[in-house]
Amino acid sequence: MADRASAEAFPVLNPDYERMARAQFEQQAFMRHVGASLVSIAPGRSEMHLPYRPELTQQNGYFHGGLIAALADNAGGAAGYSLLPADRIALTVEFKVNIMAPGQGELLIARGQVVRSGKTLTVCRADVFSVSTGTEKPCATCLMTLISIPR
Amino acid sequence: MADRASAEAFPVLNPDYERMARAQFEQQAFMRHVGASLVSIAPGRSEMHLPYRPELTQQNGYFHGGLIAALADNAGGAAGYSLLPADRIALTVEFKVNIMAPGQGELLIARGQVVRSGKTLTVCRADVFSVSTGTEKPCATCLMTLISIPR
Amino acid sequence: MADRASAEAFPVLNPDYERMARAQFEQQAFMRHVGASLVSIAPGRSEMHLPYRPELTQQNGYFHGGLIAALADNAGGAAGYSLLPADRIALTVEFKVNIMAPGQGELLIARGQVVRSGKTLTVCRADVFSVSTGTEKPCATCLMTLISIPR
Amino acid sequence: MADRASAEAFPVLNPDYERMARAQFEQQAFMRHVGASLVSIAPGRSEMHLPYRPELTQQNGYFHGGLIAALADNAGGAAGYSLLPADRIALTVEFKVNIMAPGQGELLIARGQVVRSGKTLTVCRADVFSVSTGTEKPCATCLMTLISIPR
Repeated sequence: MADRASAEAFPVLNPDYERMARAQFEQQAFMRHVGASLVSIAPGRSEMHLPYRPELTQQNGYFHGGLIAALADNAGGAAGYSLLPADRIALTVEFKVNIMAPGQGELLIARGQVVRSGKTLTVCRADVFSVSTGTEKPCATCLMTLISIPR
Repeated sequence: MADRASAEAFPVLNPDYERMARAQFEQQAFMRHVGASLVSIAPGRSEMHLPYRPELTQQNGYFHGGLIAALADNAGGAAGYSLLPADRIALTVEFKVNIMAPGQGELLIARGQVVRSGKTLTVCRADVFSVSTGTEKPCATCLMTLISIPR
Repeated sequence: MADRASAEAFPVLNPDYERMARAQFEQQAFMRHVGASLVSIAPGRSEMHLPYRPELTQQNGYFHGGLIAALADNAGGAAGYSLLPADRIALTVEFKVNIMAPGQGELLIARGQVVRSGKTLTVCRADVFSVSTGTEKPCATCLMTLISIPR
Repeated sequence: MADRASAEAFPVLNPDYERMARAQFEQQAFMRHVGASLVSIAPGRSEMHLPYRPELTQQNGYFHGGLIAALADNAGGAAGYSLLPADRIALTVEFKVNIMAPGQGELLIARGQVVRSGKTLTVCRADVFSVSTGTEKPCATCLMTLISIPR
């Protein structure tokens, strides 16, 4: 009953996926603006970090929920993008996110993974953790659909 | 077959809801950071605006999808908050958003409305429109669940 | 702030949409098995009914939640299908549903409507009402994504 | 980056959870009507099976998508219920499901698992697999929210 979907290896259609995924991430002005980084990218997987800043908070001083969702969306999107051929990009069709705990701490970590990669549509998950004095705690989980379109 | 749910009037339990909703919005550092404003709040309804800035974009220069979702979440949350008693606040339990068109233009408008207001849980919708040279176009639609907790 | 999306008229690409939508509904053995009927279909809209039967219930004798969702999905799907060209069909990519009240009464009514109709993807809503001694009450609301594929 | 959430053990608050979860399942007339069975239940986990019957199909002869979703919802619900104290039950607040492949074959298997168990709300996942000539294939994945209420 384990995580079957994520256990399978996904075929890589774009040998240059890492460089291209990083380049695309860098082109997102909003991700730079909030200070997010794409820490790692592998076939069907990604990890993004977002360090705490006072301007990223909601009324209680925690990471804003909308930003938690945005990071989850982005991590899932990068995971999906890593499996596309070089001439295609991935757009978010829709996503749904459960916020399970406040985004409290010095860092948010979002880990995206492909659940199913199809020719047109890709389904991804992303889990977001808050890190407080070094300890990770589940914060949010996201399920999403991407569409692949020509670059 | 029209929008029944939104047609009904919702009882106001907090006569001071407008001031308090505005105060809570102002306390969200992230909303200020991106330049969003709470334009109007009424019982079970809200409208938020987010003017274009280059630092809010994705790789094509449009509003970032994560930000579109964050604005939708916030507009729905404010709509729900307007119906709560003065001693309670609303937290987002989960939301799901369909991005239907790129966030292209000079402004995003998010309109939140309560679909069902319960004692513990509130269900809201939010629709996001992009405004390009003055013309509104549907951009995203969001369905969400809030939980009411003591302040 | 009304229901803009649903206010617009959608172009009809298949003049024979009503007959074909009804035929497709009739081909769904499961819909017949539970006793659902497609009451009306119009461009971008549909209405389905499901009368109470003891075998459709959960542990409290109300309509089963899974069935409420299934009816919502189907109503949204029919609404989307009505706008497709004659050589294409619609498959559900994903849906999300909030169950807002028990499905209590003698009848469920599901009303589907298209929010956005695109070449590949269609976004629909569906609202489900329970009817008890003749009075409609909101029961569930659904947001969904369809993909159009060749027949 | 593995499935952290599901790796943790959940505390059992109701020693009699298995008998009670099975009893609740048996009380769902609709589940009996379609022929579903609760194959296993463990703290925070469940597995349900639904054998093929011609009356459970959509227009192509595959398991109906609404039924796939209903089974996922039920499996997630049972997983969540297993962790509640004996005096409480779980209701589905909302769920979202991605249908990733047709429900084609002789059997559907739905595996539910708790992602986060809270005092009021529980977040669950459920994965549905179709079994064709003995081989499991991912069919759908579901993310859901339950609310715990007094029995």
